[in-house]
Amino acid sequence: MVIINHNTERTASVSEQLRALGFGTGRPVVIAGPCSVESEGQILAAAAAVKAAGATALRGGAFKPRTSPRSFQGLGADGLRLLAQAGAATGLPVVTEVMDTAQIDLVAAHADVLQIGSRNMQNFALLKEVGRAGKPVMLKRGLAATIAEWLSAAEYITASGNFQVILCERGIRTFETYTRNTLDLSSAILARQLSGLPVIVDPSHAAGRGDLIAPLSRAALAAGLDGLMIEVHPDPAQALSDNEQQLTPTAFASMMADLGLAPETEEQQMARLDAAIRALQAQRDRLRGQA
Amino acid sequence: MVIINHNTERTASVSEQLRALGFGTGRPVVIAGPCSVESEGQILAAAAAVKAAGATALRGGAFKPRTSPRSFQGLGADGLRLLAQAGAATGLPVVTEVMDTAQIDLVAAHADVLQIGSRNMQNFALLKEVGRAGKPVMLKRGLAATIAEWLSAAEYITASGNFQVILCERGIRTFETYTRNTLDLSSAILARQLSGLPVIVDPSHAAGRGDLIAPLSRAALAAGLDGLMIEVHPDPAQALSDNEQQLTPTAFASMMADLGLAPETEEQQMARLDAAIRALQAQRDRLRGQA
Amino acid sequence: MVIINHNTERTASVSEQLRALGFGTGRPVVIAGPCSVESEGQILAAAAAVKAAGATALRGGAFKPRTSPRSFQGLGADGLRLLAQAGAATGLPVVTEVMDTAQIDLVAAHADVLQIGSRNMQNFALLKEVGRAGKPVMLKRGLAATIAEWLSAAEYITASGNFQVILCERGIRTFETYTRNTLDLSSAILARQLSGLPVIVDPSHAAGRGDLIAPLSRAALAAGLDGLMIEVHPDPAQALSDNEQQLTPTAFASMMADLGLAPETEEQQMARLDAAIRALQAQRDRLRGQA
Amino acid sequence: MVIINHNTERTASVSEQLRALGFGTGRPVVIAGPCSVESEGQILAAAAAVKAAGATALRGGAFKPRTSPRSFQGLGADGLRLLAQAGAATGLPVVTEVMDTAQIDLVAAHADVLQIGSRNMQNFALLKEVGRAGKPVMLKRGLAATIAEWLSAAEYITASGNFQVILCERGIRTFETYTRNTLDLSSAILARQLSGLPVIVDPSHAAGRGDLIAPLSRAALAAGLDGLMIEVHPDPAQALSDNEQQLTPTAFASMMADLGLAPETEEQQMARLDAAIRALQAQRDRLRGQA
Repeated sequence: MVIINHNTERTASVSEQLRALGFGTGRPVVIAGPCSVESEGQILAAAAAVKAAGATALRGGAFKPRTSPRSFQGLGADGLRLLAQAGAATGLPVVTEVMDTAQIDLVAAHADVLQIGSRNMQNFALLKEVGRAGKPVMLKRGLAATIAEWLSAAEYITASGNFQVILCERGIRTFETYTRNTLDLSSAILARQLSGLPVIVDPSHAAGRGDLIAPLSRAALAAGLDGLMIEVHPDPAQALSDNEQQLTPTAFASMMADLGLAPETEEQQMARLDAAIRALQAQRDRLRGQA
Repeated sequence: MVIINHNTERTASVSEQLRALGFGTGRPVVIAGPCSVESEGQILAAAAAVKAAGATALRGGAFKPRTSPRSFQGLGADGLRLLAQAGAATGLPVVTEVMDTAQIDLVAAHADVLQIGSRNMQNFALLKEVGRAGKPVMLKRGLAATIAEWLSAAEYITASGNFQVILCERGIRTFETYTRNTLDLSSAILARQLSGLPVIVDPSHAAGRGDLIAPLSRAALAAGLDGLMIEVHPDPAQALSDNEQQLTPTAFASMMADLGLAPETEEQQMARLDAAIRALQAQRDRLRGQA
Repeated sequence: MVIINHNTERTASVSEQLRALGFGTGRPVVIAGPCSVESEGQILAAAAAVKAAGATALRGGAFKPRTSPRSFQGLGADGLRLLAQAGAATGLPVVTEVMDTAQIDLVAAHADVLQIGSRNMQNFALLKEVGRAGKPVMLKRGLAATIAEWLSAAEYITASGNFQVILCERGIRTFETYTRNTLDLSSAILARQLSGLPVIVDPSHAAGRGDLIAPLSRAALAAGLDGLMIEVHPDPAQALSDNEQQLTPTAFASMMADLGLAPETEEQQMARLDAAIRALQAQRDRLRGQA
Repeated sequence: MVIINHNTERTASVSEQLRALGFGTGRPVVIAGPCSVESEGQILAAAAAVKAAGATALRGGAFKPRTSPRSFQGLGADGLRLLAQAGAATGLPVVTEVMDTAQIDLVAAHADVLQIGSRNMQNFALLKEVGRAGKPVMLKRGLAATIAEWLSAAEYITASGNFQVILCERGIRTFETYTRNTLDLSSAILARQLSGLPVIVDPSHAAGRGDLIAPLSRAALAAGLDGLMIEVHPDPAQALSDNEQQLTPTAFASMMADLGLAPETEEQQMARLDAAIRALQAQRDRLRGQA
């Protein structure tokens, strides 16, 4: 088993650099947004919606890895520009995928986090170069990658001296066909223990079904993982990719509230605390009455 | 996709029969105990320990499905007798595996729940007969069974008119070798939605490692599943089977407390409620101070 | 890795007992017949057809392991009687599945080889008893069983003193959905090396598609395995089970001829030898002409 | 299911261009050589050995995709130069891997066939560009890629107008740990049927064990596939990568002879034909004697 060994200073420094994204604050990081950037209106609407619901970063694909060459391949450089604009408009850092060494500079000029997709988890030429951009890198687990391979891939990035690596578990390929992939929480937990790197979970790709996103998100946070990446689209039925697994803004907001991650005004916070105190006092009174 | 169709009356009746075990009460069912019944002292110690920690049922294998014929095969009828005795001593219902049609009457005479193990999930001769004993049946998912096959296996049991079926997800076989199996929470959630049957999770067999049991248990309950089955042994290092994944009584008690499932005296409850109220009031005061 | 250790005497004795079925003769054993025995006419027609095409044993299921309780479950005892009758009529030994300890005596009274199906590969109660009938046992590999588990399951049978075990590889479950299962020739080859037991291949269940049966059969024999089990039905489209993967008698006869396994009259043999000699002499003449 | 549709003219033209490599001649293509180019002496020795044994092309990695950044990464441009030199010395066309868009021109300047490795099967940026070099491309199947994904990846290459694509099955990842991967002959056969492209098999990576290479090679050719790729190293124990699965020159020569693919002098051919004719005549005489 290969393990990334961080000495204490290095880990501390990693934490500091990733803290701007919300890692290490005790509150889950939530990266949300559409599968693909499709238009200015779409990404601005998505960004506003996820910000309002409590997301801490905006995602959106400009270069899209698609199984078939006949599928929508993303808006490319235009998509990057629109994404960066939506991030600026909402104050959210942006996360987007880089697919080739030739794209690194362009993507790094627009994004706050460079994503390496599952299909490129062992694109070693890309891994060797991506860290040099000096930005945090989110490394998605390959769909049939072992924990050891995943951490070794991360070492290709850290070998360049960039330790700002975030791991993302997004489901593995199994025999089960009722879900798109099988979310592997055990490996996410172990990868976090073994590497000391932050690990987030992408339930959208893991499940491929909107109805599993909320329970899997609750499970991932209960297991102690560092955050979530969720696909949210203003109009999932019209999406140019992944339209079965993207949440509506309403469904996302509802899930965030259920997870206790929705933003609150001071009055809302006060009202929530008052209600919780009243409920506990009622329990206490019942208990005293029984005694 | 094959789905068990329950009409409302039937589901209600199922719930009533399984309620004695704690299903449908809103509080998770926790079945705990050793992998195998090994001796009177061992099973009595295990039963007392899991009862004290808040378990709601006692498990222990008397007929053991072991990969090799040279491994410990269980105490058989003696094991059943010792298990029933430990259940009676602690007031816990007992759950144990039946491996063959010829064992059904014997096992049913001692157990409150008959377990069908993963390796027998498609032992159709056994499935056809096991329901006739009139006791609840816990059907573990086969290690490479699809959701559809799992629910179809349950239908073999319900076809006998016995609808008291509990499903148990215990991990599927994948390429990953760092864990014994891969816990598949998505399928557990979907099996529950599709069948209306209670679904519990066995993180001990899923992970095969003691250190993953607590986080996976938290995740399973956060995902809304109905309970847990956990292997607990008074002295795991000396266990005759599965000694890497059984928890000590201390570790189990600690996990149950962490899950909020440890039993409390009235004073403990009162103290906990008082502490919680004080903490919320402190938050409230800080908030008012900021305002 | 668990390995069956045969000393020389034992292996020799195994070979002697299995030789009546054709193992160890240097010529592949071919077990053919329908998935299920459906009627007297169907099994007699199938038996006659596979005999004429060169099969060395007749298969046919009487007790059928079916995923759903609503599928055809086999004719049971009547099916056994019809199968034995068809075997007697054609002089072919018969192979059929036993699913439960309670069926062993009945099945052994009618069959020459007792088959343990994939779903029961780890039905240890059945494995412990099946060998006592004193007949050869064909143990199919479980669809997610490792080589070690498969050989350990065989040891449950040999532990009863019956070493007449035939292993059958029938495909494993993988992520690929275009075929029903994935034929794993490597494991079949290794299981043969490690155990010294004969190993045959079932391409019908492995592929689940008629068009792959011939090339996979050629591959299995080229890899040095001991035989084949092929599903053949007089009218596959009307079969009560597995109707996509059963060959017609015509297709089976064509495949057997292609494999060089079709029976020949002395004139046919002589004509074939003459043709082969002429072809080689022509090659020889061309070569001399070039020189 | 996505399928590459070739019209007749296009397929014919493909065949013509690939015929120089031996595809479509009725005789299997055998690409052999070391995992990695390690030195001038090593690659020249390997090239001479595989040529003498009957190989039709030389392989050798210069850019190596290695799981860990601490493993040998290949000689890069120097390796390409040495490989081309060994190809020229023996008259064998050379096959080598390209890992990144930035390497395409360099690799194409030295190689006759550009290989896309398993880990890059869905490196879509690379697939889009690699065809433009105008050389045949060998596309290895990803270790968890479905047939549909494999053929769609091939379409990324053919979309550039380059139809000289060779598919290579190299084993898929399954639960079995006794072999490195599981060779999936069914999918190789189907991919060939569906695409019309030549398909070869790499038993070295599939099995990861020297002892399986010969039987799997025989199986692949018996199944009608177009060729083999075999790792051969002058001294496998000292190899810098994959040392357990590389054959010695002696073992490779022996396997080629066994497959009927070893080169023969005219005298050897004549002697072989004479021996075969004598054997058939002896059979004929025995048969006449019986009659």
